[in-house]
Amino acid sequence: MKKILLFVDDIYEDLELWYPKIRLEEAGFKISVAGPEANKVYSGKHGYPCKADLSFDSVHTTSFDGLVIPGGYAPDKIRRHAKALQIVKEMDQEKKLIAFICHAGWVPISAKILRGRHVTAFSAIRDDLENAGAKYSDQPVVVDGNLVTSRTPADLPDFCRAILKFLS
Amino acid sequence: MKKILLFVDDIYEDLELWYPKIRLEEAGFKISVAGPEANKVYSGKHGYPCKADLSFDSVHTTSFDGLVIPGGYAPDKIRRHAKALQIVKEMDQEKKLIAFICHAGWVPISAKILRGRHVTAFSAIRDDLENAGAKYSDQPVVVDGNLVTSRTPADLPDFCRAILKFLS
Repeated sequence: MKKILLFVDDIYEDLELWYPKIRLEEAGFKISVAGPEANKVYSGKHGYPCKADLSFDSVHTTSFDGLVIPGGYAPDKIRRHAKALQIVKEMDQEKKLIAFICHAGWVPISAKILRGRHVTAFSAIRDDLENAGAKYSDQPVVVDGNLVTSRTPADLPDFCRAILKFLS
Repeated sequence: MKKILLFVDDIYEDLELWYPKIRLEEAGFKISVAGPEANKVYSGKHGYPCKADLSFDSVHTTSFDGLVIPGGYAPDKIRRHAKALQIVKEMDQEKKLIAFICHAGWVPISAKILRGRHVTAFSAIRDDLENAGAKYSDQPVVVDGNLVTSRTPADLPDFCRAILKFLS
């Protein structure tokens, strides 16, 4: 059974966390949620609660086959954790899935893995992505090797189809 | 393309509406959301907004291949609308999918379609279901002909697998 890591922090976009989480569970994957503190409950932008199973510090990337980062304003908080950035960097070096949607692109920007890579995201952070060396397209989903990216909750069907295709 | 109807009202359980909605969209279905008023935005139990595409009154069941009713406290409100109950009754007579989760069993109770049928639901409404003549089991999902039922958001993977199997 493949294991997928999901990042959380306060003000995560509720559906961008929960839809991929339940969708991957439905497809038979084991999901672990990592946040700044284990067992702490984080609140979505609209108020949906999500408990972290693990702290960023306790994550060993060798235990996971991929990473999903939801949007909202959580990515602005997640990027402040050196260990979260190290997880992204290691999983990219291991060519494992790194899927991010909406504002979540801020995290791989700070992990410095985006130079020359094709991505999409919510339009507000297009400049940040391009300034980090990424090539931005306004598409429902962009797949570049192990990176799978989408723009908004309306893209979740395309986002998850592409994630599942990569993992299959 | 098959068309599926989804009921909404205030205090709907956010994931019990949005997970089946996006999941069915991902699988290629067209989803329409019906509530008391068309174009009104209803708020989930945790605050996620959902706009109704249609009013109950404007629904023709012949246009749809199935119905999904989310839980939360919305079902307590939905069951007060005679037209919503008529939709349930007609879709049951047409042997179309009627999927309901958690507290949503209150709606088919009031539509008087449950006598002798096997269902599950959140444990709090077990007595209401049994008093309406249904046979209750504490299972992640129960399928009885065109009825697909589950208990809580934790059952959403099983609920949607069974819904998709029925519709395939």
